[in-house]
Amino acid sequence: MDRFTYRDGVLYVEDVAVEDIAARFGTPVYVYSHGTLVTHLRQVADAFADLAPLICFSVKALSNIHLLRGLAAAGAGVDVVSGGELYRALLAGVPAQRIVFAGVGKSDEELRYAVRSGIRCVNVESEGEMRALARAAAECRMPAGAAVRVNPDVAVGSRTPAKTTTGRRGGKFGIDLDRVHEVYRLAVDDEWLRPEGLHFHLGSPVFHPRAYGDAVDKVLTVTEKLTADGAPVPTINIGGGFPADYEGSGVPGWSDFAAVIAPKLRSFVAAGGTVVMEPGRSIAANAGVLLASVRYLKTSGSRNVVITDTGMSHLIRTAFYDTFHFLWPARPRNGLSPVGRTGEHDQPDLARYDVAGPLCESSDYLAKDRLLPSLRPGDVLAIFTAGAYGMTMASHYNSLPRPAEVLVDGGDVRLIRRRETYEDLVSAEVDAEAGPAAAGTTKPA
Amino acid sequence: MDRFTYRDGVLYVEDVAVEDIAARFGTPVYVYSHGTLVTHLRQVADAFADLAPLICFSVKALSNIHLLRGLAAAGAGVDVVSGGELYRALLAGVPAQRIVFAGVGKSDEELRYAVRSGIRCVNVESEGEMRALARAAAECRMPAGAAVRVNPDVAVGSRTPAKTTTGRRGGKFGIDLDRVHEVYRLAVDDEWLRPEGLHFHLGSPVFHPRAYGDAVDKVLTVTEKLTADGAPVPTINIGGGFPADYEGSGVPGWSDFAAVIAPKLRSFVAAGGTVVMEPGRSIAANAGVLLASVRYLKTSGSRNVVITDTGMSHLIRTAFYDTFHFLWPARPRNGLSPVGRTGEHDQPDLARYDVAGPLCESSDYLAKDRLLPSLRPGDVLAIFTAGAYGMTMASHYNSLPRPAEVLVDGGDVRLIRRRETYEDLVSAEVDAEAGPAAAGTTKPA
Repeated sequence: MDRFTYRDGVLYVEDVAVEDIAARFGTPVYVYSHGTLVTHLRQVADAFADLAPLICFSVKALSNIHLLRGLAAAGAGVDVVSGGELYRALLAGVPAQRIVFAGVGKSDEELRYAVRSGIRCVNVESEGEMRALARAAAECRMPAGAAVRVNPDVAVGSRTPAKTTTGRRGGKFGIDLDRVHEVYRLAVDDEWLRPEGLHFHLGSPVFHPRAYGDAVDKVLTVTEKLTADGAPVPTINIGGGFPADYEGSGVPGWSDFAAVIAPKLRSFVAAGGTVVMEPGRSIAANAGVLLASVRYLKTSGSRNVVITDTGMSHLIRTAFYDTFHFLWPARPRNGLSPVGRTGEHDQPDLARYDVAGPLCESSDYLAKDRLLPSLRPGDVLAIFTAGAYGMTMASHYNSLPRPAEVLVDGGDVRLIRRRETYEDLVSAEVDAEAGPAAAGTTKPA
Repeated sequence: MDRFTYRDGVLYVEDVAVEDIAARFGTPVYVYSHGTLVTHLRQVADAFADLAPLICFSVKALSNIHLLRGLAAAGAGVDVVSGGELYRALLAGVPAQRIVFAGVGKSDEELRYAVRSGIRCVNVESEGEMRALARAAAECRMPAGAAVRVNPDVAVGSRTPAKTTTGRRGGKFGIDLDRVHEVYRLAVDDEWLRPEGLHFHLGSPVFHPRAYGDAVDKVLTVTEKLTADGAPVPTINIGGGFPADYEGSGVPGWSDFAAVIAPKLRSFVAAGGTVVMEPGRSIAANAGVLLASVRYLKTSGSRNVVITDTGMSHLIRTAFYDTFHFLWPARPRNGLSPVGRTGEHDQPDLARYDVAGPLCESSDYLAKDRLLPSLRPGDVLAIFTAGAYGMTMASHYNSLPRPAEVLVDGGDVRLIRRRETYEDLVSAEVDAEAGPAAAGTTKPA
């Protein structure tokens, strides 16, 4: 699953004890395993080998430029959803032809940036955006790949949070099936646009391979009609949303999804079509942990409360999605290594703790009522499966600087984002005092 | 209530049309009214005039240094909850003796920073923290004010979200009533600590003045016992959490709270005691709007969806707390100024819209099924009551740079935080490449 393992009672990431990373870089710190990232990437490629897909890693899940660089070197493209993510991808050296750009609200400036950068395609989410992309391409006098994001209106099941279900009718994403043909024709008929195919994305995490099967069926039906109408559909992009295993309890793996999806797309590929996919969470979540330190232990009523140095401003998932993250000390007392990654352990000598962050907000908990080895101030805790939607959702709430990020590759340890300082919190406010010259604009570089 | 008003069909902040601010600084942009902030501050002071309280504005609600400077000049102190907020307050020139410092997870470094800065007091939230503060004061060889944050265990009513209810037994905040005496004695008996009194904070927003009354009663009981025991209690800090009027529907005002609280504390004040209070939301929420631009209009199923250039990464409240924000065009078509700030308007010529942000997340909506004047791309929308817990909770999710902030005072318009750039998103990652020399640490300046 990943390369975070307990050896002789101590947590290692690849060949490095995480407590050494905490000692060297301080906490809180996000620690990523390069080996896990590229292994996951290869596993996706293997599972879908029949389709030889272009795997575009979803930057919104994990966006550090050094990690993107590593994934690109291993053959990945990327899925970006903003000019900022495009900027990151280009800075990381991702080849433009491996970049696809989704998102419901792209600005004219972002579209021109995409066109000028020569990316593979923009996944267009409305008729208005298709017209805006045509204008952007004409202004740049450069051709632009345009795919249509279809809203396939398929059910994904109740385990996918409503907050992250993106393929139902009535939502803001994509173009309703009955309007896709008409909008796609705009690309076919435009002087500067190059029709690049169809895209869908169902949400995340999606646990039912059948949902993808249903969506592929619908998209293939549209593809047939478009092709019959003389409109080329060179690519089908099946999005991302594959689950990660947060609890070590087993979730459908890539091969389960491939078993449903691949047979349906084999003839499309055999006929020269390209399949794109956009995994993010399934590659990154288990490739990262967040290390925290215990600051205080207290009792409140009958509860044992552990106060750590990290919370919702660094990892908002627990507070925002009410999701589970396994956590355990980096060096558990009495050598009590965990027997799994669930919240309940059939182990002796554990105690129940609420694990809280330092923020002034009641939702700022990492875990409640969790069985853990006994804890003391200074202990380092690892919060697992924090590689996806961890750092990318971090804020400065309560004016906490954001954590450092560290990448481990075998025995090699590298700082890939320095810890922020108090000065970082206010620099844009201090700049504003200096007058208009210092007042930057959001122009692509 | 505030100084955001429609005149001749155009929204003004004080004497400035907000569309001029959008044109000059771009969108999204947070716009604050200095007059509203200081008027609210004065209204709090007037309502509680009997107690002559020290009003410590809650920095976590709104933390821009230029706004803090204005509030300090108008006589306010501040309530901070982290070293980062303390840094902001000192940078803004808030006198140290008007700074109080709460928060469950203060680090040793933050405590030393507080001691060295000579702030009024640290509101201590656990026995462990009291001992850490004593060590910090001893190390610095400087006296330090220590108050105890009491967990009064009072009910605040169901309208206060569980996420922001902070005064119940079993939670992480404060010290249980039955342990307060013992922990307070540590401050009394310590060589370097100066016992500064008791503090509580119930949550936010709290709609029932009686909840404060109940908490004050409990704290006064503890105060009597401590005093009888020879432990001085010079200050009672009643926290914040007073509501703001998000829907223009009327909420209890400061005078309603004062009517319950002030009589209970009058004799404490008459005997030389000081009352501190920590309003944040009630002062700041209606002093700010977030201006957005419409990018696309689309239909999805039977719904009209408006895609704007701002969303949950800039204002997470709707997605996170499921709260209501009134919004309306800055220059509504046909001069359709709003008749109130509720979601339902008894006005002709309105249409129902879902107003979404650009992020790839289904919860990224500013409003759903809202009656609005007809909208077109390019229209500027004002999202009201965004002054509190707006910018302070903003993130870089989806790699969107954070908005600019602008302060209006009468006819004067001032940029107080420049818009972030793509370079800002990655600067700490680029720095990391430069090696240890560029790898900053979170040291107080």
